[in-house]
Amino acid sequence: MPPVTPIAWKEDCLWLLDQRLLPHRVEEFRCERTTQVAEAIREMVVRGAPAIGIAAAYGVVLAAREAWQAHGEAWRQGILPALEELERARPTAVNLAWALARMRRCFDAIDGEPELPLLAEARAIHEEDVAANRHMGELGAKYLQPGARVLTHCNAGALATGGHGTALGVVRSGWAEGKIERVYADETRPWLQGARLTAWELLKEGIPVTLLAEGAAAWLMKSGRVEWVIVGADRITANGDVANKIGTLNLAIIARRYGVRMMVVAPISTIDPGLADGNAIPIEERPAAELLELAGRPIAASGAGAWNPVFDVTPAELVDLLVTEHGALERPDRAGVTGLLERAAAV
Amino acid sequence: MPPVTPIAWKEDCLWLLDQRLLPHRVEEFRCERTTQVAEAIREMVVRGAPAIGIAAAYGVVLAAREAWQAHGEAWRQGILPALEELERARPTAVNLAWALARMRRCFDAIDGEPELPLLAEARAIHEEDVAANRHMGELGAKYLQPGARVLTHCNAGALATGGHGTALGVVRSGWAEGKIERVYADETRPWLQGARLTAWELLKEGIPVTLLAEGAAAWLMKSGRVEWVIVGADRITANGDVANKIGTLNLAIIARRYGVRMMVVAPISTIDPGLADGNAIPIEERPAAELLELAGRPIAASGAGAWNPVFDVTPAELVDLLVTEHGALERPDRAGVTGLLERAAAV
Repeated sequence: MPPVTPIAWKEDCLWLLDQRLLPHRVEEFRCERTTQVAEAIREMVVRGAPAIGIAAAYGVVLAAREAWQAHGEAWRQGILPALEELERARPTAVNLAWALARMRRCFDAIDGEPELPLLAEARAIHEEDVAANRHMGELGAKYLQPGARVLTHCNAGALATGGHGTALGVVRSGWAEGKIERVYADETRPWLQGARLTAWELLKEGIPVTLLAEGAAAWLMKSGRVEWVIVGADRITANGDVANKIGTLNLAIIARRYGVRMMVVAPISTIDPGLADGNAIPIEERPAAELLELAGRPIAASGAGAWNPVFDVTPAELVDLLVTEHGALERPDRAGVTGLLERAAAV
Repeated sequence: MPPVTPIAWKEDCLWLLDQRLLPHRVEEFRCERTTQVAEAIREMVVRGAPAIGIAAAYGVVLAAREAWQAHGEAWRQGILPALEELERARPTAVNLAWALARMRRCFDAIDGEPELPLLAEARAIHEEDVAANRHMGELGAKYLQPGARVLTHCNAGALATGGHGTALGVVRSGWAEGKIERVYADETRPWLQGARLTAWELLKEGIPVTLLAEGAAAWLMKSGRVEWVIVGADRITANGDVANKIGTLNLAIIARRYGVRMMVVAPISTIDPGLADGNAIPIEERPAAELLELAGRPIAASGAGAWNPVFDVTPAELVDLLVTEHGALERPDRAGVTGLLERAAAV
């Protein structure tokens, strides 16, 4: 079975595996213009913090092509509206802004047509993400005991990244080392990333996976069925607070009560040193229809409203282990996160 | 708007509002034989601990009619298989066994055809449940401050009882007193009792209700949006441990962290003094298909398995207030529960 490839550059275009349709249909969404990339991010054709960053980086390549065609040597000015459209697509995951900033840092050194040098940078971001995931997978798996049973939430897998995955990267590495007995996956309402995406990814590789409703998490942990909760992250602040898919905070609170350990796996690009703590993270709220309808059909009482925040913030004190490609940090705090960033900057 | 009537005895039969179809279709399920009542309980045509008890009581009326027709004066023996079928229908809610035991206590005093005297007893159980709910509603509402915002889980409303509701009885009484600002309702996977039933009930009465995914509960409580979690119960043990819909334990743990108070509302018939604590409560696990399909269509990755326990047990220490029709108990414990039962027995 070939590895899952959620993002690919082919035929001078960006191709995204359409995650709205998985697992029932496997179709690619072709982006030949920047605005399609922004749409794909907004509408969750592509989702997952690292994957959004990579898609946006390729989006800059398309934007540069358009700007060069329209403005020639003045492309650096002409590209700005497209960059803003990409940055506005989703607010919580910092990897989006991070990737755009990294792409922009290349602009000055470019002489002439910008597409190829920017494509090289986007490819580098993509490849570095996969490499980071593989490294984090190995680092995180070191903490697992043989026979480990893991609860994960949402999809922090190959589909959420350039490949391999963050939380599921640790699961994949642990599985390869024979350490994983079973993965429990929250179905993850309302978008069902667990039921649709995580289960699909793990089943393709033969890793035993059992779905459960989010409501069953405390009963799962109380009954001693898991040793670890392993999740990804969308933004981590300077003190180690973690924004991630709504429901992560529930799990962290419950895990602490039952002595289950909480592992957060995310590349350095997820850390936002500009924010002192989690209170400053913008939390996206998405349309109520995501809760009230499924596949376009109503599932709730007609006329009901819904509150649909799609991320929450877990305080650093509830995180037992933060794994990045520049090292793992037990009980992350401001000093530890600063140290990680310094180590990353020194590379 | 007439009140919701989930259970009715009409035309010598039991009629149940089919809760599998709500809110999209309002249809009654007619039971003219006991086995249909057992099926209705198993398949969740009727659900909610008190409602199951009442339905089973009417089921005994049908069973007695069948036994009288088949066995005449030997109906007390002939009825036993039907009683066993009813009792086996669902394991967790003790109200089912309680109602059957109460119906059986009438058998000895019956002379001749048993249908009418048993119907009188079933009607009494039904009417007493509604009266208990109204009384509990008033008792519980006393604890609410004006402007109260409440999170509820599953459906502990008119649909789960003989009428008025337990948790939603407190909401209805609080609303009538002008104390309720808003109800937040967990959608309650996998069966969507919150989205389908609680929202439907509250909207019919104009009580403001906002749905959310279970995963959003911690973020709701952390952001100070609710003062109370109010839920029903399926079985309460002698020490005050509470079995209720899966996900209740999550809420209790999270509520304690954020200083949100936890109220459990249940009639005395929900208390099982024969069980020392929650470890002894049988927890029903239902088919994985309830999680993996919606309206018969797959929503998860093909081949995925699921774990579907439908109740959990909240330890008494996490309950701030237990409301019964015989009084409210702050911080319930063994002594307090014993006192409640003594008060109930003395009436």
